Amino acid sequence: MERIIPFNRPYLTGKEAHYVYDAVYTGKLSGNGKYTHLCQDFFKEKYGFGKCLLTTSCTDALEMAALLLNIKSGDEVILPSYTFVSTANAFVLRGAKLVFVDSREDHPGMDENKIEELITEKTRAIVPVHYAGVACDMDKIMALAEKYGLYVVEDAAQAIDSYYTGKDGVKKALGSIGHLAAFSFHETKNIISGEGGMLAINDPDFMDRAEILWEKGTNRSAFFRGEVDKYGWVDVGSSFLPSEIIAAFLWAQLENLEEIQKKRIEHWNQYFEGLNDWIREQGMNLPYIPSYATNNAHMFYIVCESGAQRDFIIKKLKKRKIHSVFHYLSLHKSPFYKGIHGSRELIHSDTYSDHLIRLPLFFQLTKDDIEYILKVLKSK
Amino acid sequence: MERIIPFNRPYLTGKEAHYVYDAVYTGKLSGNGKYTHLCQDFFKEKYGFGKCLLTTSCTDALEMAALLLNIKSGDEVILPSYTFVSTANAFVLRGAKLVFVDSREDHPGMDENKIEELITEKTRAIVPVHYAGVACDMDKIMALAEKYGLYVVEDAAQAIDSYYTGKDGVKKALGSIGHLAAFSFHETKNIISGEGGMLAINDPDFMDRAEILWEKGTNRSAFFRGEVDKYGWVDVGSSFLPSEIIAAFLWAQLENLEEIQKKRIEHWNQYFEGLNDWIREQGMNLPYIPSYATNNAHMFYIVCESGAQRDFIIKKLKKRKIHSVFHYLSLHKSPFYKGIHGSRELIHSDTYSDHLIRLPLFFQLTKDDIEYILKVLKSK
Repeated sequence: MERIIPFNRPYLTGKEAHYVYDAVYTGKLSGNGKYTHLCQDFFKEKYGFGKCLLTTSCTDALEMAALLLNIKSGDEVILPSYTFVSTANAFVLRGAKLVFVDSREDHPGMDENKIEELITEKTRAIVPVHYAGVACDMDKIMALAEKYGLYVVEDAAQAIDSYYTGKDGVKKALGSIGHLAAFSFHETKNIISGEGGMLAINDPDFMDRAEILWEKGTNRSAFFRGEVDKYGWVDVGSSFLPSEIIAAFLWAQLENLEEIQKKRIEHWNQYFEGLNDWIREQGMNLPYIPSYATNNAHMFYIVCESGAQRDFIIKKLKKRKIHSVFHYLSLHKSPFYKGIHGSRELIHSDTYSDHLIRLPLFFQLTKDDIEYILKVLKSK
Repeated sequence: MERIIPFNRPYLTGKEAHYVYDAVYTGKLSGNGKYTHLCQDFFKEKYGFGKCLLTTSCTDALEMAALLLNIKSGDEVILPSYTFVSTANAFVLRGAKLVFVDSREDHPGMDENKIEELITEKTRAIVPVHYAGVACDMDKIMALAEKYGLYVVEDAAQAIDSYYTGKDGVKKALGSIGHLAAFSFHETKNIISGEGGMLAINDPDFMDRAEILWEKGTNRSAFFRGEVDKYGWVDVGSSFLPSEIIAAFLWAQLENLEEIQKKRIEHWNQYFEGLNDWIREQGMNLPYIPSYATNNAHMFYIVCESGAQRDFIIKKLKKRKIHSVFHYLSLHKSPFYKGIHGSRELIHSDTYSDHLIRLPLFFQLTKDDIEYILKVLKSK
């Protein structure tokens, strides 16, 4: 029987249904219950985030960030063009003008050396996206933020359990460095809850208000802590919090974080070592991990020499029922934003749009599966 | 042993875990899968809604509605003051000015006869809230919308399986009448998924764009239908869709809708009949169901003669471990909005804020439980 290898298959640790049951039978199905707190405390303690609030998606976490920063019409936000639409939408919804920065030549993440030239007096925030879970050079970004009085929102959608070591030699978890950081637990991520996300709030100035926005603009949390004698509408807000069903599912995953990460890193290394020579022969590129970054094995990608080469490889794999996919299309060239962006070229972003392929990477893959993928990939 | 009666207890039909398992093991955990479609089709067919899209909350459905209507800074939106903050926040987030209308004297829903005087040339939408699942007089509201060229967004958070019969004698499901309608499946509702909601789109003009906003501003749905050859960023949007885990849970509930509704209506009727005489003696009021409306037994409330009487009753019940609760605080008097609203009085909204009590109403209550609640309620 020919094997079929999907691009992704959600991995279950085995405890998900048990915890979902538990959430259900303790009678707490809406948000902000036992499992929500377990998950939030886990992140806070393990990664040193200031305060953590689960959300229904990373998109919602980014929208909370934009609200917390009071982004308004006319404000400018600097972000990579090579990213998911939600990085952009969260700020467009508040009326911001997006200022796109190009990717690095050696990595799809934003080029930290091209940010400063884009800063104007209207700039309010920089949104680095840790592509493939690989850190942006946060020292450079935080220094710019300090120099110009800007906020930094880390889009850490792909960056769970990944780290950055700055010039001070201190290894910091991604998501713990910016004023705010957004994570995703979408089914394609290392740790999943179907749809889901989290906002990490590192700047203490935002902590109280974050809780209010999360509670639909009410001071309900303060009420339950006995700090006010009745609760009411005190601010804007939304229903950002996920059901306990989702949090219970997520908790089963977090309990197995180390096992999941270990396996993914094994898979990633097998790809990297198995492809090293062949990729060079083909004129393609493997992922680059800067010395200040760690690899959380969120994604294994290769960068082809041309769009034609990429299409050829995707088709070759598909013929053998191996599902590989490309990734983002440059947002500055999107139907929605190209008119606003204008003609400023972002050549590396376009290159990754046209040349990057992501290979299957999920827990359940075996060494043998990856050997097979490598064999098909290298076949004529 | 003394019995403890909570205000609400989520009811499980027994199939929830089974369907959640199924969603998980078919490998589809993110949104827009089999269970999402089952739920959406169910609503469309049973209630005649134009198009249905599940959301992570009713709040998110209302936010989608505000985006679809292109609500902008300076626009005015008419809504009741006696409602949940999300009815208001969804429009405030788009920059709208809220214009609050008072409740009816005989019902907490908005007074349909006080809307027209609030319409200005800036008015864009009317948002009737079907309080306790009891219809607003939609003929009056739709006539105003037509006369002034306004949109109507039904806040049907509490109004599943409830109907309105207009002057034409046709019985229409709540949520099928306005241009758009938002539903909630929060754990306190008749049909639940922990946190969850749905937007019903009845005006065909909004259907294509609704799908795009729901897909984070991309034309991904059109791509999967083969209508475009690649998908990209074409509009604003957010991550409105819930996980299949949530949709699977919801589907188990929907399969048992009739049984749930039958039982809740029995409970409601037992309260109503058991309290009829006593309530009159006490100078209190029972719920009023206009002849054009049905009762979906979402809530059983009583309206006290005074705030002191209400506090006395809540305490009396609490002493016997029966948990009753009051409901909204008038939004026009909230810390967040009172400065903008000004001094215009909304006396009925304030009366319901101060005098209304909700009694326990959930599937698992027995006839005996309700007898007991009635006995405690009527005791000296």
